[in-house]
Amino acid sequence: MKRHSEPRQIPVAISAHHVHLSQATIERLFGKDYVLQPRSALSQPGQFAALDTVTLIGPRGRLEHVRILGPPRAADQVEISRTDQRILGLDAPLRLSGDLDSTPGLMLEGPKGKVALAKGVVCALRHIHMSPSDAEDLNVRDHDVVQVAVGSEGRHVVFGDVVVRVSPDYRLELHLDTDEGNAAGVGPGTTAHLVSQSV
Amino acid sequence: MKRHSEPRQIPVAISAHHVHLSQATIERLFGKDYVLQPRSALSQPGQFAALDTVTLIGPRGRLEHVRILGPPRAADQVEISRTDQRILGLDAPLRLSGDLDSTPGLMLEGPKGKVALAKGVVCALRHIHMSPSDAEDLNVRDHDVVQVAVGSEGRHVVFGDVVVRVSPDYRLELHLDTDEGNAAGVGPGTTAHLVSQSV
Repeated sequence: MKRHSEPRQIPVAISAHHVHLSQATIERLFGKDYVLQPRSALSQPGQFAALDTVTLIGPRGRLEHVRILGPPRAADQVEISRTDQRILGLDAPLRLSGDLDSTPGLMLEGPKGKVALAKGVVCALRHIHMSPSDAEDLNVRDHDVVQVAVGSEGRHVVFGDVVVRVSPDYRLELHLDTDEGNAAGVGPGTTAHLVSQSV
Repeated sequence: MKRHSEPRQIPVAISAHHVHLSQATIERLFGKDYVLQPRSALSQPGQFAALDTVTLIGPRGRLEHVRILGPPRAADQVEISRTDQRILGLDAPLRLSGDLDSTPGLMLEGPKGKVALAKGVVCALRHIHMSPSDAEDLNVRDHDVVQVAVGSEGRHVVFGDVVVRVSPDYRLELHLDTDEGNAAGVGPGTTAHLVSQSV
Protein backbone atom coordinates (compact mmCIF):
# COMPACT_ATOMS: atom_id res chain seq x y z
CA MET A 1 0.00 0.00 0.00
CA LYS A 2 1.30 3.45 -0.91
CA ARG A 3 1.64 5.81 2.01
CA HIS A 4 0.26 9.26 1.30
CA SER A 5 2.22 12.18 2.66
CA GLU A 6 -1.04 13.85 3.66
CA PRO A 7 -3.32 10.93 4.39
CA ARG A 8 -6.86 11.25 3.08
CA GLN A 9 -9.30 11.63 5.95
CA ILE A 10 -12.05 9.03 6.04
CA PRO A 11 -15.34 9.88 7.78
CA VAL A 12 -16.31 7.43 10.52
CA ALA A 13 -19.81 6.13 11.20
CA ILE A 14 -20.85 4.01 14.16
CA SER A 15 -23.41 1.36 13.33
CA ALA A 16 -25.59 0.67 16.34
CA HIS A 17 -27.37 -2.68 16.29
CA HIS A 18 -29.93 -2.80 13.49
CA VAL A 19 -31.79 -5.11 11.17
CA HIS A 20 -32.31 -5.37 7.43
CA LEU A 21 -35.57 -7.16 6.63
CA SER A 22 -37.30 -8.64 3.62
CA GLN A 23 -40.71 -7.24 2.68
CA ALA A 24 -42.26 -10.60 3.62
CA THR A 25 -40.81 -10.39 7.14
CA ILE A 26 -41.85 -6.74 7.46
CA GLU A 27 -45.44 -7.69 6.66
CA ARG A 28 -45.45 -10.55 9.19
CA LEU A 29 -44.20 -8.13 11.89
CA PHE A 30 -46.15 -5.00 10.95
CA GLY A 31 -49.15 -6.24 8.95
CA LYS A 32 -50.09 -6.92 5.34
CA ASP A 33 -48.88 -4.38 2.75
CA TYR A 34 -46.98 -2.44 5.42
CA VAL A 35 -44.37 -0.06 4.03
CA LEU A 36 -41.35 1.03 6.12
CA GLN A 37 -41.63 4.63 7.25
CA PRO A 38 -38.36 6.52 6.60
CA ARG A 39 -37.09 8.57 9.52
CA SER A 40 -33.74 9.82 8.18
CA ALA A 41 -31.42 9.27 5.26
CA LEU A 42 -28.16 7.39 5.91
CA SER A 43 -24.90 8.52 4.42
CA GLN A 44 -24.85 5.61 1.96
CA PRO A 45 -27.01 6.75 -0.98
CA GLY A 46 -30.60 5.44 -0.97
CA GLN A 47 -30.34 3.86 2.49
CA PHE A 48 -32.51 5.11 5.34
CA ALA A 49 -33.22 4.52 9.00
CA ALA A 50 -36.89 3.69 9.43
CA LEU A 51 -39.18 5.02 12.13
CA ASP A 52 -40.03 1.37 12.71
CA THR A 53 -38.20 -0.82 15.23
CA VAL A 54 -38.37 -4.44 16.32
CA THR A 55 -37.52 -6.42 19.44
CA LEU A 56 -34.80 -9.07 19.25
CA ILE A 57 -35.38 -12.10 21.47
CA GLY A 58 -32.51 -14.48 22.17
CA PRO A 59 -32.07 -17.47 24.48
CA ARG A 60 -30.96 -15.26 27.40
CA GLY A 61 -32.53 -11.86 26.89
CA ARG A 62 -34.12 -9.27 24.64
CA LEU A 63 -33.18 -6.00 22.98
CA GLU A 64 -36.00 -3.58 22.32
CA HIS A 65 -36.29 -0.65 19.90
CA VAL A 66 -33.81 -2.09 17.40
CA ARG A 67 -34.02 0.03 14.28
CA ILE A 68 -34.88 -1.29 10.85
CA LEU A 69 -32.75 0.07 8.01
CA GLY A 70 -34.40 0.36 4.61
CA PRO A 71 -35.08 -0.26 1.87
CA PRO A 72 -36.13 -3.92 2.29
CA ARG A 73 -33.60 -6.55 1.23
CA ALA A 74 -33.82 -10.05 -0.18
CA ALA A 75 -32.59 -11.63 3.07
CA ASP A 76 -33.20 -10.84 6.74
CA GLN A 77 -30.02 -9.77 8.53
CA VAL A 78 -29.52 -8.78 12.18
CA GLU A 79 -26.31 -6.86 13.05
CA ILE A 80 -25.35 -6.79 16.72
CA SER A 81 -22.27 -6.05 18.79
CA ARG A 82 -20.41 -8.36 21.17
CA THR A 83 -22.07 -6.46 24.02
CA ASP A 84 -25.48 -7.17 22.49
CA GLN A 85 -24.80 -10.85 21.90
CA ARG A 86 -24.08 -11.34 25.59
CA ILE A 87 -27.42 -9.75 26.45
CA LEU A 88 -29.20 -11.98 23.94
CA GLY A 89 -27.21 -15.13 24.71
CA LEU A 90 -26.05 -15.72 21.14
CA ASP A 91 -22.72 -16.26 19.47
CA ALA A 92 -22.77 -14.14 16.31
CA PRO A 93 -19.88 -14.72 13.89
CA LEU A 94 -17.89 -11.85 12.38
CA ARG A 95 -19.18 -11.48 8.83
CA LEU A 96 -19.46 -9.09 5.94
CA SER A 97 -22.99 -7.98 5.19
CA GLY A 98 -24.80 -10.61 3.13
CA ASP A 99 -22.55 -13.53 4.15
CA LEU A 100 -25.14 -15.37 6.24
CA ASP A 101 -24.38 -19.08 5.86
CA SER A 102 -24.01 -20.90 9.20
CA THR A 103 -25.11 -17.91 11.26
CA PRO A 104 -27.54 -18.24 14.18
CA GLY A 105 -31.13 -17.07 14.13
CA LEU A 106 -33.33 -15.47 16.76
CA MET A 107 -36.91 -14.34 17.28
CA LEU A 108 -38.07 -10.96 15.93
CA GLU A 109 -41.09 -9.31 17.49
CA GLY A 110 -43.10 -6.51 15.91
CA PRO A 111 -46.45 -4.89 16.73
CA LYS A 112 -48.42 -7.41 14.64
CA GLY A 113 -46.49 -10.63 15.03
CA LYS A 114 -43.32 -12.60 15.59
CA VAL A 115 -40.92 -14.16 13.11
CA ALA A 116 -38.41 -16.89 14.00
CA LEU A 117 -35.34 -16.34 11.86
CA ALA A 118 -33.42 -19.56 11.12
CA LYS A 119 -30.25 -17.55 10.43
CA GLY A 120 -28.97 -14.05 9.76
CA VAL A 121 -27.47 -12.83 13.04
CA VAL A 122 -23.95 -11.43 12.56
CA CYS A 123 -21.39 -9.16 14.14
CA ALA A 124 -20.30 -6.94 11.26
CA LEU A 125 -16.67 -7.06 10.16
CA ARG A 126 -15.38 -3.51 10.26
CA HIS A 127 -15.25 -2.14 6.74
CA ILE A 128 -14.83 0.95 4.58
CA HIS A 129 -17.34 1.85 1.92
CA MET A 130 -15.89 3.71 -1.03
CA SER A 131 -16.45 4.54 -4.69
CA PRO A 132 -14.12 3.27 -7.44
CA SER A 133 -12.47 6.69 -7.64
CA ASP A 134 -11.86 6.74 -3.85
CA ALA A 135 -10.34 3.26 -4.16
CA GLU A 136 -8.01 4.50 -6.88
CA ASP A 137 -7.09 7.54 -4.81
CA LEU A 138 -6.40 5.38 -1.73
CA ASN A 139 -4.61 2.73 -3.80
CA VAL A 140 -6.77 -0.17 -2.58
CA ARG A 141 -9.15 -2.65 -4.20
CA ASP A 142 -12.48 -4.23 -3.34
CA HIS A 143 -12.06 -6.83 -0.55
CA ASP A 144 -8.55 -5.65 0.40
CA VAL A 145 -7.96 -5.88 4.14
CA VAL A 146 -6.35 -2.71 5.48
CA GLN A 147 -5.29 -1.01 8.71
CA VAL A 148 -6.97 2.19 9.76
CA ALA A 149 -5.93 4.69 12.44
CA VAL A 150 -8.78 6.27 14.39
CA GLY A 151 -9.14 7.82 17.76
CA SER A 152 -9.52 10.70 20.10
CA GLU A 153 -7.45 11.94 23.04
CA GLY A 154 -6.57 8.98 25.25
CA ARG A 155 -8.07 6.35 22.96
CA HIS A 156 -6.04 6.21 19.75
CA VAL A 157 -6.37 2.90 17.95
CA VAL A 158 -5.17 1.22 14.77
CA PHE A 159 -7.82 -1.22 13.65
CA GLY A 160 -6.57 -4.16 11.59
CA ASP A 161 -8.83 -6.46 9.58
CA VAL A 162 -10.76 -3.62 7.98
CA VAL A 163 -12.35 -4.80 4.72
CA VAL A 164 -12.54 -2.47 1.72
CA ARG A 165 -15.88 -2.49 -0.08
CA VAL A 166 -16.00 -0.70 -3.42
CA SER A 167 -19.14 0.21 -5.37
CA PRO A 168 -20.29 3.16 -7.46
CA ASP A 169 -23.18 3.34 -4.96
CA TYR A 170 -20.90 3.87 -1.93
CA ARG A 171 -19.71 7.02 -0.25
CA LEU A 172 -16.36 7.03 1.56
CA GLU A 173 -16.97 5.99 5.18
CA LEU A 174 -15.46 3.68 7.81
CA HIS A 175 -18.12 1.63 9.56
CA LEU A 176 -17.47 0.47 13.13
CA ASP A 177 -19.83 -1.07 15.62
CA THR A 178 -20.58 0.54 18.98
CA ASP A 179 -17.91 -1.45 20.87
CA GLU A 180 -15.26 -0.45 18.33
CA GLY A 181 -16.38 3.18 18.28
CA ASN A 182 -16.26 3.33 22.08
CA ALA A 183 -12.81 1.71 22.19
CA ALA A 184 -11.51 4.47 19.90
CA GLY A 185 -13.43 7.30 21.59
CA VAL A 186 -15.21 8.12 18.33
CA GLY A 187 -17.40 11.20 18.48
CA PRO A 188 -18.99 13.63 16.03
CA GLY A 189 -16.54 14.58 13.30
CA THR A 190 -13.98 11.86 14.09
CA THR A 191 -12.05 10.83 11.00
CA ALA A 192 -9.71 7.96 10.20
CA HIS A 193 -6.87 7.31 7.79
CA LEU A 194 -5.22 4.29 6.24
CA VAL A 195 -1.88 3.25 7.68
CA SER A 196 0.66 0.99 6.07
CA GLN A 197 2.01 -0.66 9.20
CA SER A 198 0.88 -4.19 9.82
CA VAL A 199 -1.18 -4.95 12.91
CA MET B 1 11.33 1.67 22.83
CA LYS B 2 13.43 -1.35 21.99
CA ARG B 3 11.72 -3.92 19.79
CA HIS B 4 12.20 -7.45 21.04
CA SER B 5 12.80 -10.09 18.39
CA GLU B 6 10.41 -12.41 20.24
CA PRO B 7 7.98 -10.03 21.91
CA ARG B 8 7.05 -10.87 25.48
CA GLN B 9 3.44 -11.96 25.67
CA ILE B 10 1.30 -9.92 28.06
CA PRO B 11 -1.81 -11.53 29.54
CA VAL B 12 -5.01 -9.55 28.93
CA ALA B 13 -7.81 -8.98 31.44
CA ILE B 14 -11.16 -7.37 30.70
CA SER B 15 -12.46 -5.16 33.48
CA ALA B 16 -16.22 -5.18 33.48
CA HIS B 17 -17.84 -2.22 35.25
CA HIS B 18 -17.08 -2.33 38.98
CA VAL B 19 -16.72 -0.17 42.07
CA HIS B 20 -14.08 0.31 44.74
CA LEU B 21 -15.65 1.54 47.98
CA SER B 22 -14.51 2.94 51.29
CA GLN B 23 -15.45 1.04 54.45
CA ALA B 24 -17.72 3.95 55.43
CA THR B 25 -19.65 3.70 52.17
CA ILE B 26 -19.85 -0.09 52.46
CA GLU B 27 -21.47 0.27 55.89
CA ARG B 28 -24.00 2.82 54.62
CA LEU B 29 -24.98 0.44 51.81
CA PHE B 30 -24.79 -2.91 53.65
CA GLY B 31 -25.14 -2.08 57.35
CA LYS B 32 -22.93 -1.25 60.33
CA ASP B 33 -19.71 -3.26 60.64
CA TYR B 34 -20.39 -5.06 57.36
CA VAL B 35 -17.34 -6.79 55.88
CA LEU B 36 -17.08 -7.49 52.12
CA GLN B 37 -17.47 -11.17 51.32
CA PRO B 38 -14.73 -12.36 48.93
CA ARG B 39 -15.95 -14.41 45.97
CA SER B 40 -12.74 -14.89 43.99
CA ALA B 41 -9.16 -13.66 43.92
CA LEU B 42 -8.16 -11.27 41.13
CA SER B 43 -4.87 -11.64 39.32
CA GLN B 44 -3.42 -8.56 41.02
CA PRO B 45 -2.11 -9.82 44.40
CA GLY B 46 -4.43 -9.19 47.38
CA GLN B 47 -7.32 -7.92 45.26
CA PHE B 48 -10.61 -9.79 45.16
CA ALA B 49 -14.06 -9.69 43.59
CA ALA B 50 -16.67 -9.58 46.34
CA LEU B 51 -19.90 -11.55 46.43
CA ASP B 52 -21.50 -8.18 47.11
CA THR B 53 -22.85 -5.94 44.35
CA VAL B 54 -24.49 -2.52 44.18
CA THR B 55 -26.84 -0.72 41.83
CA LEU B 56 -25.61 2.39 40.00
CA ILE B 57 -28.27 5.04 39.44
CA GLY B 58 -27.60 7.83 36.96
CA PRO B 59 -29.74 10.64 35.52
CA ARG B 60 -31.02 8.42 32.68
CA GLY B 61 -30.91 4.84 33.91
CA ARG B 62 -29.57 2.22 36.28
CA LEU B 63 -27.11 -0.65 36.21
CA GLU B 64 -27.77 -3.48 38.63
CA HIS B 65 -25.46 -6.18 40.03
CA VAL B 66 -22.29 -4.09 39.68
CA ARG B 67 -19.54 -5.93 41.49
CA ILE B 68 -17.53 -4.47 44.36
CA LEU B 69 -13.80 -5.15 44.24
CA GLY B 70 -11.97 -5.43 47.54
CA PRO B 71 -10.31 -4.70 49.78
CA PRO B 72 -11.91 -1.33 50.71
CA ARG B 73 -10.08 1.80 49.58
CA ALA B 74 -9.73 5.31 50.92
CA ALA B 75 -11.91 6.78 48.14
CA ASP B 76 -15.03 5.56 46.36
CA GLN B 77 -14.46 4.93 42.66
CA VAL B 78 -16.88 3.73 39.97
CA GLU B 79 -15.40 2.37 36.74
CA ILE B 80 -17.75 2.14 33.78
CA SER B 81 -17.51 1.78 30.02
CA ARG B 82 -18.77 4.17 27.34
CA THR B 83 -21.63 1.75 26.78
CA ASP B 84 -22.51 1.95 30.48
CA GLN B 85 -22.32 5.73 30.62
CA ARG B 86 -24.92 6.00 27.89
CA ILE B 87 -27.24 3.77 29.90
CA LEU B 88 -26.67 5.86 33.03
CA GLY B 89 -26.72 9.24 31.28
CA LEU B 90 -23.31 10.34 32.55
CA ASP B 91 -20.16 11.65 30.94
CA ALA B 92 -17.28 9.85 32.66
CA PRO B 93 -13.80 11.15 31.85
CA LEU B 94 -10.92 8.85 30.88
CA ARG B 95 -8.77 8.56 34.00
CA LEU B 96 -6.20 6.44 35.72
CA SER B 97 -7.42 4.78 38.89
CA GLY B 98 -7.30 7.21 41.82
CA ASP B 99 -7.36 10.38 39.68
CA LEU B 100 -10.84 11.52 40.68
CA ASP B 101 -10.78 15.32 40.66
CA SER B 102 -13.55 16.85 38.54
CA THR B 103 -15.28 13.55 37.88
CA PRO B 104 -19.06 13.16 38.10
CA GLY B 105 -20.88 11.37 40.90
CA LEU B 106 -23.95 9.15 40.92
CA MET B 107 -26.22 7.32 43.34
CA LEU B 108 -25.20 3.94 44.78
CA GLU B 109 -27.89 1.64 46.11
CA GLY B 110 -27.26 -1.31 48.40
CA PRO B 111 -29.54 -3.60 50.43
CA LYS B 112 -29.49 -1.30 53.48
CA GLY B 113 -29.27 2.19 52.01
CA LYS B 114 -28.25 4.64 49.31
CA VAL B 115 -25.16 6.82 49.03
CA ALA B 116 -24.93 9.85 46.75
CA LEU B 117 -21.36 10.09 45.53
CA ALA B 118 -20.25 13.63 44.73
CA LYS B 119 -17.50 12.34 42.44
CA GLY B 120 -15.59 9.21 41.49
CA VAL B 121 -17.13 8.00 38.21
CA VAL B 122 -14.48 7.32 35.58
CA CYS B 123 -13.87 5.43 32.37
CA ALA B 124 -10.54 3.70 33.00
CA LEU B 125 -7.59 4.60 30.78
CA ARG B 126 -6.29 1.34 29.36
CA HIS B 127 -3.15 0.35 31.23
CA ILE B 128 -0.63 -2.40 31.89
CA HIS B 129 0.22 -3.50 35.41
CA MET B 130 3.76 -4.78 35.83
CA SER B 131 6.50 -5.36 38.38
CA PRO B 132 9.80 -3.43 38.28
CA SER B 133 11.53 -6.47 36.77
CA ASP B 134 8.87 -6.74 34.04
CA ALA B 135 9.37 -3.03 33.32
CA GLU B 136 13.10 -3.56 32.95
CA ASP B 137 12.53 -6.56 30.72
CA LEU B 138 10.07 -4.61 28.54
CA ASN B 139 12.25 -1.49 28.58
CA VAL B 140 9.54 0.83 29.86
CA ARG B 141 9.00 2.97 32.96
CA ASP B 142 6.09 3.83 35.24
CA HIS B 143 3.64 6.19 33.46
CA ASP B 144 5.13 5.59 30.02
CA VAL B 145 2.45 5.59 27.33
CA VAL B 146 2.88 2.66 24.97
CA GLN B 147 1.23 0.90 22.04
CA VAL B 148 0.00 -2.64 22.44
CA ALA B 149 -1.07 -5.14 19.78
CA VAL B 150 -3.98 -7.39 20.73
CA GLY B 151 -6.59 -9.29 18.86
CA SER B 152 -8.14 -12.39 17.51
CA GLU B 153 -9.07 -13.50 13.99
CA GLY B 154 -10.87 -10.66 12.23
CA ARG B 155 -10.40 -8.14 15.05
CA HIS B 156 -6.69 -7.33 15.35
CA VAL B 157 -6.04 -3.97 16.99
CA VAL B 158 -3.13 -1.82 18.09
CA PHE B 159 -4.20 0.20 21.11
CA GLY B 160 -2.39 3.47 21.61
CA ASP B 161 -2.51 5.51 24.82
CA VAL B 162 -1.81 2.51 27.07
CA VAL B 163 -0.34 3.68 30.39
CA VAL B 164 2.37 1.64 32.11
CA ARG B 165 1.88 1.20 35.85
CA VAL B 166 4.80 -0.27 37.77
CA SER B 167 4.70 -1.55 41.34
CA PRO B 168 6.25 -4.46 43.24
CA ASP B 169 2.62 -5.39 44.02
CA TYR B 170 1.62 -5.75 40.36
CA ARG B 171 1.54 -8.77 38.12
CA LEU B 172 2.03 -8.34 34.35
CA GLU B 173 -1.39 -7.78 32.78
CA LEU B 174 -3.04 -5.49 30.22
CA HIS B 175 -6.35 -4.12 31.49
CA LEU B 176 -9.03 -3.21 28.95
CA ASP B 177 -12.67 -2.35 29.50
CA THR B 178 -15.47 -4.37 27.94
CA ASP B 179 -15.80 -2.11 24.88
CA GLU B 180 -12.08 -2.35 24.19
CA GLY B 181 -12.02 -6.11 24.77
CA ASN B 182 -14.95 -6.59 22.39
CA ALA B 183 -13.35 -4.38 19.73
CA ALA B 184 -10.27 -6.64 19.79
CA GLY B 185 -12.21 -9.90 20.05
CA VAL B 186 -10.48 -10.72 23.35
CA GLY B 187 -11.30 -14.17 24.70
CA PRO B 188 -9.80 -16.61 27.20
CA GLY B 189 -6.05 -16.84 26.78
CA THR B 190 -5.71 -13.79 24.52
CA THR B 191 -2.30 -12.14 24.91
CA ALA B 192 -0.86 -8.83 23.82
CA HIS B 193 2.58 -7.45 23.05
CA LEU B 194 4.21 -4.05 22.94
CA VAL B 195 4.79 -2.55 19.52
CA SER B 196 7.12 0.28 18.67
CA GLN B 197 5.12 1.89 15.87
CA SER B 198 3.32 5.07 16.73
CA VAL B 199 -0.45 5.13 16.63
